[in-house]
Amino acid sequence: MSAEFDFIARLQRLCPVRPPVVVGIGDDAAVLQHGESLEVVTTDMLMEGVDFLVDETTPELMGRKCLAVNLSDLAAMGSRPTAAFVSVSLPRRRGRIFAERFFEGLLALAEEFQVTIAGGDTNSWDGPLVCSVTALGTPCGRAPVLRSGAAPGDVVMLTGACGGSLSGRHLTFAPRLREAAKLVELVDVHAMIDISDGLAADVHHILRASRVGAILDAAAIPIHSDVQQMPPDKAPLERALSDGEDFELAFTVSADAAATLQRTWREPTPLSIIGQITADNECRLREPGGALRSLPPMGWTYRLDAEDSSL
Amino acid sequence: MSAEFDFIARLQRLCPVRPPVVVGIGDDAAVLQHGESLEVVTTDMLMEGVDFLVDETTPELMGRKCLAVNLSDLAAMGSRPTAAFVSVSLPRRRGRIFAERFFEGLLALAEEFQVTIAGGDTNSWDGPLVCSVTALGTPCGRAPVLRSGAAPGDVVMLTGACGGSLSGRHLTFAPRLREAAKLVELVDVHAMIDISDGLAADVHHILRASRVGAILDAAAIPIHSDVQQMPPDKAPLERALSDGEDFELAFTVSADAAATLQRTWREPTPLSIIGQITADNECRLREPGGALRSLPPMGWTYRLDAEDSSL
Repeated sequence: MSAEFDFIARLQRLCPVRPPVVVGIGDDAAVLQHGESLEVVTTDMLMEGVDFLVDETTPELMGRKCLAVNLSDLAAMGSRPTAAFVSVSLPRRRGRIFAERFFEGLLALAEEFQVTIAGGDTNSWDGPLVCSVTALGTPCGRAPVLRSGAAPGDVVMLTGACGGSLSGRHLTFAPRLREAAKLVELVDVHAMIDISDGLAADVHHILRASRVGAILDAAAIPIHSDVQQMPPDKAPLERALSDGEDFELAFTVSADAAATLQRTWREPTPLSIIGQITADNECRLREPGGALRSLPPMGWTYRLDAEDSSL
Repeated sequence: MSAEFDFIARLQRLCPVRPPVVVGIGDDAAVLQHGESLEVVTTDMLMEGVDFLVDETTPELMGRKCLAVNLSDLAAMGSRPTAAFVSVSLPRRRGRIFAERFFEGLLALAEEFQVTIAGGDTNSWDGPLVCSVTALGTPCGRAPVLRSGAAPGDVVMLTGACGGSLSGRHLTFAPRLREAAKLVELVDVHAMIDISDGLAADVHHILRASRVGAILDAAAIPIHSDVQQMPPDKAPLERALSDGEDFELAFTVSADAAATLQRTWREPTPLSIIGQITADNECRLREPGGALRSLPPMGWTYRLDAEDSSL
């Protein structure tokens, strides 16, 4: 983990931010400015054997996931997608039908969210399936929501529930684009991220970018019923905090805005208040008895099998 | 070849072009409109064993090529780069130094052309090196140069020389960004493409998009001295027409514009007039004796080992 983060930090230092780029490496997406318009750009690469096992899923779901993870990043920026670019290395031995079904799954999700597939690069080879999608979008509000805007006194909130996604939901999840648009419409969202590394790890990302701390309330963290499908080697709360690939949105708002959301939220996806932002730099968990313990970004070490790091 | 093209044609039908996209699948890059600004976007995925052999080159040159092929696509659109996004699956067994050297080569080229690396996704796995770069740019002139603007009576021109790139130039070539900017400044470029599939194949791409034909003049086609490094199984002219990965620019301009270029071109990269655009749909080669023969897009079948198709 630390080696991987060192590497990204080094790249970040080596990559100066120049116009039209206004936000570079380090958030869920980059931000570019074109005249008065802001553009949000994100990219993710998924690999056979790491992000999906070909024999345990369908080509359609693999194609769907390749686009969905990128749409989730745009949602985390409080943005809506406009176009996507799809580069893929298709395993030759799986043949043409596999390729067609892969694109069918991807294109169906693109249609659902009105994303134009505007280009790409299709290759076939003797290696495993690798797909990289770059998604472009535009902020739902005046500006994208970054990771860096959390302030002491903010309330930490979450869409949906976390844990157990590897039992199948990591392939079928709905990117929270509608929820992000609604949140931005209703209140001033200070900071937001999507849960890919795990709730604890991703909250840590917000804290680091915002230079603040947080206390999460163990009893308030919504645990997905999918944890029941998982091996019983971990407590449900640990799964919610560390499984990852939930693709829910964690975000911070003022206490007033949280009250507004509780009063006016009518979407089918529930919202929960799961903690508070603090002025220190610590991330802590309030246990049901009231005791506070340090909460490490432990999501990372429990991820599938890959060292994966969005820049 | 035809199966691959069928597949792209099908994707193109399945992917409606919607704002902000104004040019979608089918050119060297897509074009998006943001208010008054036009943005050009291209993506290419390169794979170990297909686009480079790890044991026959250096990590720096591999990283360089991954960005360079995309910058070449932007040049072909008469555009200059602004930002790029880099997704990579690094072979774990090659270790961290390999990864650092890969990025060093890529970042050095980015600095040379003032491209901001604004994001990406770094992964390590047990598979081969795969890297996908998405490059964003902006037209040097009022609008990007497409493949579809060639008109009967146009002159077909070429930067530099073709053939023999696999002896090493396919890794070290300079993307023709300065040349593209100068061309657009000096004249109205009607259609342009970069030579990746091979001169004959890529001229065919212009002809198909523009619904015109061409006569190329065999004696006028500049043959790169690198053909001498290649096995003697093919004639030098055949190599120039079909080797591919030259990353020169083929373009069409009016006869007057061609004369202007011949008078005013001061760049170190030479320009050649290699043929004329015709009103029919045929692509023909005028042999040194004057005889005309049909020129198939034969570049394709001689490419490395991959079925590779930019959308």
